[in-house]
Amino acid sequence: MVYLNGNFIAKKQASISVMDRGFLFGDGVYEVIPTYQGKLFRLDAHLKRLQNSLDAIKISNPYSNSEWQKILNQLLGYSQSENQSLYLQITRGADTQRKHSFDTLIPTVYIESNPLITKTKHTLEKGVSVITQADIRWSRCDIKATSLLANVLYAQNAKENQVEEIILHRDNIVTEGATSNVFMIKAGILFTHPASKNILSGVTRDLVLESALACKLSANESAFTVDALLNADEVWISSSTREIMPVTQIDDQAVNHGKVGNYWECVYHHYQQLKND
Amino acid sequence: MVYLNGNFIAKKQASISVMDRGFLFGDGVYEVIPTYQGKLFRLDAHLKRLQNSLDAIKISNPYSNSEWQKILNQLLGYSQSENQSLYLQITRGADTQRKHSFDTLIPTVYIESNPLITKTKHTLEKGVSVITQADIRWSRCDIKATSLLANVLYAQNAKENQVEEIILHRDNIVTEGATSNVFMIKAGILFTHPASKNILSGVTRDLVLESALACKLSANESAFTVDALLNADEVWISSSTREIMPVTQIDDQAVNHGKVGNYWECVYHHYQQLKND
Repeated sequence: MVYLNGNFIAKKQASISVMDRGFLFGDGVYEVIPTYQGKLFRLDAHLKRLQNSLDAIKISNPYSNSEWQKILNQLLGYSQSENQSLYLQITRGADTQRKHSFDTLIPTVYIESNPLITKTKHTLEKGVSVITQADIRWSRCDIKATSLLANVLYAQNAKENQVEEIILHRDNIVTEGATSNVFMIKAGILFTHPASKNILSGVTRDLVLESALACKLSANESAFTVDALLNADEVWISSSTREIMPVTQIDDQAVNHGKVGNYWECVYHHYQQLKND
Repeated sequence: MVYLNGNFIAKKQASISVMDRGFLFGDGVYEVIPTYQGKLFRLDAHLKRLQNSLDAIKISNPYSNSEWQKILNQLLGYSQSENQSLYLQITRGADTQRKHSFDTLIPTVYIESNPLITKTKHTLEKGVSVITQADIRWSRCDIKATSLLANVLYAQNAKENQVEEIILHRDNIVTEGATSNVFMIKAGILFTHPASKNILSGVTRDLVLESALACKLSANESAFTVDALLNADEVWISSSTREIMPVTQIDDQAVNHGKVGNYWECVYHHYQQLKND
């Protein structure tokens, strides 16, 4: 069961007009919201970011926060498993003709919910591998937009290289992963790229920073180079569905001799607690 | 009447699955092909560029060139007016679940045809106004992709500023317009950004270069600065549907004292001849 423009329908019956600007122009935004034990996790933060994305491309938010909450919970009612990943997409809507500029249209709202299967701690303790590549994306990565072709190409590249993620750099500065935020620890200080137009400041990113404080890690939101990354004591990637993953290999180089670090251990536990709050 | 995946159907009946990767990821490419007096104009060049775009994002071309020609001509058969603008879009197709990486799917093919109304010479002789802005797009502008949100925002900006186009610059170098190529003339030499990953080398761009030769203009495919643009003798923008438009104002500055130049006059006539060949 999915949600499309006011109706709960079977996924295979969910169709949109070819004139939808989401289809013609990638003219839309989205959010991914995890649920744990049936509860929407950090809904307010996700809806705030959704609002920022909508504002940036001048789409009116079709629903109030309480309406969103009601719709999302209604959709969750159709799902079987406890933990879900909710995907919601809003496009500018369907026009009568294709033109780049836009008039005010009725936005298209699509939502689906899928089981959220996170890796076990045992699996995570093996660490994940990543590779680094130049960041070819546009300069408004702070908008969670559906014009995602660059990210698609990176994800495919990761799959072909059998790595978890591609870590991106712009002018030798690490920005973020293709679908995650990136953290590194050096000498007890946690670094991550500051919120800017070059990264999507994730909801999980904020939770990692929150967890870091609980683990007595001082957090420094400042940019760092690829070289610094390669010489870090610990490296993590985070996203709503990945949570916090420890990176043990970057390109052909081991991080922390290929072992998961102690700070990750602490932050991981704190994050699990936050989920159950 | 439009074409969708093998069928000629009414536009309002043309719908696609919400799982189409064109809708979810802007994961597709497109072409715009003009027709004059019922004839497809420079079809081979457009199909060649389409193939390049498809190859770049690893979508198999669903049709041979002769199949494309047949389908496009069939669709044209439903149209009333002589000159048409054909829009064709190919997306990677619909998957069963949303994930950034992709498997081989059946591509979605959508084509529509609309009357092509070009500005009269009389109107063009008044010149058009443009404004300059920083190029925020990704680094693969050579792919004619449907992930077009940046272009949408530029087009809206142009509309709000009541100008014909936004001319983009990257590190102070003029790349192209948001939906056009840019040319400038200085001391009898025609300049345009070389074909690279930072521009979409247009089919009309090649025709302008061809026409320039016929007008005894030496063409120099090399980059130029915003400053050079502002001090040019003539500035033009080109696209399949705009053809060649003379720019007489850039930001708050007049080009050639606000008058359309002689070279434009010559190139315009040559282009009109090419259309009727």
